[in-house]
Amino acid sequence: MSTQKTADLLARRERLLGVGIATFYQDPVQIVRGEGVWLHDADGRRYLDLYNNVPCVGHAHPHVVEAMQRQTETLNVHSRYLHEGILDYAERLTALHHDAISTAVFTCSGTEANEVAIMMARAATDGRGLICTDAAYHGNSTEVRKLSRLRSAADKEFRSIPVPQLYRAVDGDLAEDALTDAYLDLLQAEIDGFAADGVPFAGLVLCPILANEGLPDIPSDFMARAADKVHAVGGLFICDEVQAGFARTGRWWGYETSGFEPDIISMGKPMGNGFPLAGVVAPSELVNVFREKTRYFNTFASSPLQAAVGQAVIDVIEQEDLLTRVNEVGAHLREGLRAIQETCEPMADIRGHGLFLGLEWVKDRRSKEPDPEGADWVVNRLRQDGFLLGRAGENGNVLKLRPPLVFEQEHADLFLTAFESAVADAPS
Amino acid sequence: MSTQKTADLLARRERLLGVGIATFYQDPVQIVRGEGVWLHDADGRRYLDLYNNVPCVGHAHPHVVEAMQRQTETLNVHSRYLHEGILDYAERLTALHHDAISTAVFTCSGTEANEVAIMMARAATDGRGLICTDAAYHGNSTEVRKLSRLRSAADKEFRSIPVPQLYRAVDGDLAEDALTDAYLDLLQAEIDGFAADGVPFAGLVLCPILANEGLPDIPSDFMARAADKVHAVGGLFICDEVQAGFARTGRWWGYETSGFEPDIISMGKPMGNGFPLAGVVAPSELVNVFREKTRYFNTFASSPLQAAVGQAVIDVIEQEDLLTRVNEVGAHLREGLRAIQETCEPMADIRGHGLFLGLEWVKDRRSKEPDPEGADWVVNRLRQDGFLLGRAGENGNVLKLRPPLVFEQEHADLFLTAFESAVADAPS
Repeated sequence: MSTQKTADLLARRERLLGVGIATFYQDPVQIVRGEGVWLHDADGRRYLDLYNNVPCVGHAHPHVVEAMQRQTETLNVHSRYLHEGILDYAERLTALHHDAISTAVFTCSGTEANEVAIMMARAATDGRGLICTDAAYHGNSTEVRKLSRLRSAADKEFRSIPVPQLYRAVDGDLAEDALTDAYLDLLQAEIDGFAADGVPFAGLVLCPILANEGLPDIPSDFMARAADKVHAVGGLFICDEVQAGFARTGRWWGYETSGFEPDIISMGKPMGNGFPLAGVVAPSELVNVFREKTRYFNTFASSPLQAAVGQAVIDVIEQEDLLTRVNEVGAHLREGLRAIQETCEPMADIRGHGLFLGLEWVKDRRSKEPDPEGADWVVNRLRQDGFLLGRAGENGNVLKLRPPLVFEQEHADLFLTAFESAVADAPS
Repeated sequence: MSTQKTADLLARRERLLGVGIATFYQDPVQIVRGEGVWLHDADGRRYLDLYNNVPCVGHAHPHVVEAMQRQTETLNVHSRYLHEGILDYAERLTALHHDAISTAVFTCSGTEANEVAIMMARAATDGRGLICTDAAYHGNSTEVRKLSRLRSAADKEFRSIPVPQLYRAVDGDLAEDALTDAYLDLLQAEIDGFAADGVPFAGLVLCPILANEGLPDIPSDFMARAADKVHAVGGLFICDEVQAGFARTGRWWGYETSGFEPDIISMGKPMGNGFPLAGVVAPSELVNVFREKTRYFNTFASSPLQAAVGQAVIDVIEQEDLLTRVNEVGAHLREGLRAIQETCEPMADIRGHGLFLGLEWVKDRRSKEPDPEGADWVVNRLRQDGFLLGRAGENGNVLKLRPPLVFEQEHADLFLTAFESAVADAPS
């Protein structure tokens, strides 16, 4: 697209949507069409999508399109009437979780799901205090925004902890067990901090794969032992599966990769393949106390349309056996990246799960100094080459690979070839 | 539907969605299909819909269905890419508002829109204190829930005021002018209360037609004079058009019926005819400061799909000239109700705007004692007769008539005949 046309569109966007609404890439892309793992711009050029987790079964998947159309032309109403669609969906969705999970609350966004999750934890514990991780982002509402280091220091109901990153631990020389102990002590210190402030503890909120931290490998028993610590003081463990859920990791849920069973699980992004669908599942006793204390109602949620779209997404994941594909293609992609890593000094760590990989980009492997500019160069170079990816992590130096789950080996190979060539050209 | 089948469905619903998730009507309806102003239950029986404002252009309107399908099979991505659809929609939507309104922030629900609205008011004023009306409901998030009398008394950032209902004013004998003065004094007292508490004032949040208060008639200059009072102390007037907007009142926006120009306008329910679409419009300087301070991003909002559906809804309102129809059919409905009122003692007050009418139900016209049980009897009797309506108001004694905007004179006549017969049978 011409520089002038891009500038005109950006100016129009600032006028109509406000100054400071960000775009991806130094040279933003005007996408007009999507199909499977491909996005097409206004000039007819195609891009391989290695970024979008929301259209998890692929852009414009015909089964989802058809389900949405069929339900839209039949019925879409709120949930004050009886309708079997949302019951069938709730039954199927809860059955995909661990045994204690039986009941669902639906919402329209991940933010709303996390609102429900924290209201539920507070309702069930009569507590207020919530702990998140330092680099967390769980949503954009006034309350959920506080689940991050961006909260006001004056806020006594939110605290945050660092996580024991094996690649980049504060006490890097500790063995895994000692590292876990050290970070559990940090968790305990925040729990004790609430007690000192007179704030009753409600729970811990975590992404099970620490996506916003850049998917660091952590000691394998950290999550389970953190859960024990939280339960020991009457708190609940809220697992935010908005990024990790729906087969992304090669398991249905991120918590399955981390070996623990959360009390309350929020879900979002991929749940409706782009249709606004999100929600929370939990044991019925937690949902019941939440319902009783809040009388929660959400006009657009629990609708026949949400149910139809949500079922269609699960249909595709099952019928196309995407769990198997995610594991196979994810392993193939990782293997290809490892080969490139051998001669690519800045790519210091390759990690992640299934089709959600993080590549830690550093200035020097010994110092491990983060190199966000280098990572940004790679992202923008690959955008010019027709491959869309992004960045993550507290330092913005982790390349984020997170394609739709229908990404195949041939797509991985296309990317690996382009990536190898791009990083060979990277300025040192 | 058989009593047993309804009981089974209710039990399954409690198990999967939680105990305490409410349904409408003593004998809940299992709706399976909708078309225009008609809803059909699982037994093939049809109901005239006098309740649903969300499907504003009618259930399953083909133009909206087609727009949704066309966009879904083409592209649906988040707003970090450039796309003209959301810009075209923002341009068209802001142009429907008063001249100072130029810029939009899109969300997935009315709750999220009100979150944005209050974050915007706080960002622009550096204030915190918000005033709502006593019977207000503006949404279900932790923060927006506080915009009601349900908030905790310990919360110093929220206050509420009563409104000068002409039918039911505390000082019923006052002339309109004196009534306005008396209630503006109550508003001023809350503004002063914030000052006394050291809470800087951010603004006033109102539904312009006071829908949750049961649509009371108020002095014609109250809203404009309240806005003056708010502006005098540097606050902003947030108008919640979630219920009043999109031609419902016979004007595009509820604030046009109340004669004032709000600073920040939130919208929701009818905006996408049931698709999760909501948002806020405001002058660009307010949106810019909000964007700068919050870096707000909403994954499912500002999408090509939201844009396509939102445009389709405006198309239908314009192409089918629903503003004219709402005024004509609304007047016809009101006239028919006035005729019934002559011999219906409990129907003490008929009010509202366009196709959103409230009928105040009382035990006795002299004492004006609210009769929620009587109103409830009427609602449930009419449900049995095939007509769906609801209740509103602080006392739950206001019958709420709010059909899809494609409601025609013949539908009004069907309802009036059934209503006259039902109220004649009402237990006294």
